[in-house]
Amino acid sequence: MAKSVETNEGANRAREPWKAFQARQRNSDTKRDAVLQTAAHLFLEHGYRRTSMSELGTRLKITKPALYYYFNNKEEILVECYRLGIAAIEELLDEAAVSHGNGLNKVRAYVEAYAKAVLTYDFGRCVAMLDDAELSPKARREVRDLKRKIDMAIRSYVEEGIRDGSIAECNVKLASFALAGAVNWIGTWYRPEGELKAEDIARQFADLLTQGLGGSDRKPAVGKRVRAGKG
Amino acid sequence: MAKSVETNEGANRAREPWKAFQARQRNSDTKRDAVLQTAAHLFLEHGYRRTSMSELGTRLKITKPALYYYFNNKEEILVECYRLGIAAIEELLDEAAVSHGNGLNKVRAYVEAYAKAVLTYDFGRCVAMLDDAELSPKARREVRDLKRKIDMAIRSYVEEGIRDGSIAECNVKLASFALAGAVNWIGTWYRPEGELKAEDIARQFADLLTQGLGGSDRKPAVGKRVRAGKG
Repeated sequence: MAKSVETNEGANRAREPWKAFQARQRNSDTKRDAVLQTAAHLFLEHGYRRTSMSELGTRLKITKPALYYYFNNKEEILVECYRLGIAAIEELLDEAAVSHGNGLNKVRAYVEAYAKAVLTYDFGRCVAMLDDAELSPKARREVRDLKRKIDMAIRSYVEEGIRDGSIAECNVKLASFALAGAVNWIGTWYRPEGELKAEDIARQFADLLTQGLGGSDRKPAVGKRVRAGKG
Repeated sequence: MAKSVETNEGANRAREPWKAFQARQRNSDTKRDAVLQTAAHLFLEHGYRRTSMSELGTRLKITKPALYYYFNNKEEILVECYRLGIAAIEELLDEAAVSHGNGLNKVRAYVEAYAKAVLTYDFGRCVAMLDDAELSPKARREVRDLKRKIDMAIRSYVEEGIRDGSIAECNVKLASFALAGAVNWIGTWYRPEGELKAEDIARQFADLLTQGLGGSDRKPAVGKRVRAGKG
């Protein structure tokens, strides 16, 4: 954990919304929280389908009736994991909106915070990684409505950036999908024991996705943005 | 299909490697091809696990013994879908390497071609979308080795771009993951009946991912690349 002061400052600033969120969570039922945390972990490790209520009970060392006291079925648990993850991501979006300048800065702040959520927070990773096609139509609709709110918020920052000149004209929907896709995909390759720290990955993703790859000798043909809708 | 000459030219140029690949495919067994194409479609539509050999036989209107003449089991079919998808993607990578100038241009050409593969070619989409964790350890190792070759090729283009100055200093591994993630994710949201054409999506993804979002009034704090490894 030997990090430079600069990194720590950045990390602490970005972690603040989590702290507030997690503090509120602590007021709720601790056992219920343990069920959710263990379930999220198992869903991510073995997949939702391959995780059974029996296995969850065994892991938690509680009886099946005790488990069913909290949740009627596995789907209810998954929906709650999504809800917690999406609620946390929404706080990050709000945080990105209030404390940063232009549209591009908001998008950058959001990408960094969202990447950190996928990298370090199991419920955040559930939102990115688990397939909501596993849910019943009603539950799926609920989860997708929640996800859509996030997508709409990102789009609004991109639109703001286009208006204030910090973001080049582009198809806002595609930009939002490209950002979300790159970050969601982190869950497929990231290993906490790997060489790269979550903070560094999040920062570099935010750089790459907002600034692009371009170096010092960009050729005009590449440097010039192709306007949305052309061709 | 009313497209401008410019778009057609671009699309034809990018489609050439597919044509060569598909022509060679035609020399192989047509019935075996039909099995693979129908299987890929079902895997993508319902998931690998939920697709049974019986269902596949019914769709193809062939008996189970006829189906088992071509493949010993479902896993063999999935591995072959991956192989075809990855072989096609490798051709796109080679095509990007030979006909484009600097490293950034190669990356751009590759992102556009790969996005098109995920958007329009079922075997390409299999590579992006299907979870290789479903495979047995031996088959999974084979598929992951193939995928790694693709990843290594992209990294080599990014490295080339850093050397020739067309790409800014960055963590090459993270850049490759960000590009692949954004493109692979296309499979989760793209609907062929939607308003956007595959060609336009592919081109705009290539723009966004290589040029970034930045507009005309970038602030220096955002415009300045944070060097890899800093902090």
